[in-house]
Amino acid sequence: MILYGYALSSASYRVRIALALKGLQVTSVQKNLREGEQRREDFLQINSQGLVPVLALDDGTALSQSVAIMEYLDETYPEPPLMPPDPLARARVRALTQLIACDIHPLNNLRVLRYLQNDLNLDKGARDTWYRHWIQLGFEALERTLLRDPATGRFCHGATPTMADVCLVPQVFNARRFAVDLDSYPRIVGIDAACRELPAFQGAAPERAASR
Amino acid sequence: MILYGYALSSASYRVRIALALKGLQVTSVQKNLREGEQRREDFLQINSQGLVPVLALDDGTALSQSVAIMEYLDETYPEPPLMPPDPLARARVRALTQLIACDIHPLNNLRVLRYLQNDLNLDKGARDTWYRHWIQLGFEALERTLLRDPATGRFCHGATPTMADVCLVPQVFNARRFAVDLDSYPRIVGIDAACRELPAFQGAAPERAASR
Repeated sequence: MILYGYALSSASYRVRIALALKGLQVTSVQKNLREGEQRREDFLQINSQGLVPVLALDDGTALSQSVAIMEYLDETYPEPPLMPPDPLARARVRALTQLIACDIHPLNNLRVLRYLQNDLNLDKGARDTWYRHWIQLGFEALERTLLRDPATGRFCHGATPTMADVCLVPQVFNARRFAVDLDSYPRIVGIDAACRELPAFQGAAPERAASR
Repeated sequence: MILYGYALSSASYRVRIALALKGLQVTSVQKNLREGEQRREDFLQINSQGLVPVLALDDGTALSQSVAIMEYLDETYPEPPLMPPDPLARARVRALTQLIACDIHPLNNLRVLRYLQNDLNLDKGARDTWYRHWIQLGFEALERTLLRDPATGRFCHGATPTMADVCLVPQVFNARRFAVDLDSYPRIVGIDAACRELPAFQGAAPERAASR
């Protein structure tokens, strides 16, 4: 399998973690988002959406969208599972996943920051305020949810990492990169720390991905 | 079951369609997003994320995030399925779903439009340009994807509606509401029309939901 990604892309980071948790080896191909390599014609032939990550299977099938890729990996390589077996617990893990993947991350994508800069002429200060605003709003909701629900454990759900943790760690990485004050989110910070003790999370980190 | 939603909320609209496709009857409770009812303390007790839709089960469990709710419904009430059985086909349906749910919809949420208005002082023209920009960018990617893949049928995937169609119709509704020119997306327009021939899609439409 080939993973087309970008070291600093959160969605690529998620898939790197998921692959590592499953113990799957892939060839890694970097697409430089800052130079728009993902929108060039050769890559559009692979993924007509013009986005990374893309996981190309050995038969050439190209899977896109990080959450869809993680669900596919979990269905196809069930061990260790990225989701609990019970439907209600799965719904909880998916809700936490979507909270990050839909309510926080899309607002801080590179293409959105570029629109703020180029089309709305926002300076760096205003762009950083925007960036932090959506993380803070999302993390407040996430922290409240994690605190209230007894299903929260060492990880977002119980004692082993799930898709929700796979999304959480890249989001916390972004928060730190943009100097978001994390003191108000002790549960999030604790879970992030627990995840980053695991080799799968360590090996997938942007600084490691960039050097490959 | 109780569905907490809002007639014009796309994510609520998705869940209304999914419930109708499954033939499930629920009690509908409207939360007026324009008046911030979803962030009031009584509703935060039900959903600590302060967002709609929320599907409250008969035992009181509250499920949040429209995509997570649809996956739950499909696991718990398998007929008729909202996803094909094959993992690769499921990955495709989920990727189309996420393309809409992550790459288009979050950028045009009411809370984002309010930030543009109140924090960035954008006038209506600039806000409408923003709104249309993200739909156009997403629809270009979606149209290209639907055109290229032979798995596209009368619906986004094959001959019966899936989660992807459930997300598509509310997004096309929003596009029309903001006068996005849809001439460049004939495949999207055709699938939207095919969906809206079905009673489940008709009954879930905002104008019907608002009058209940």
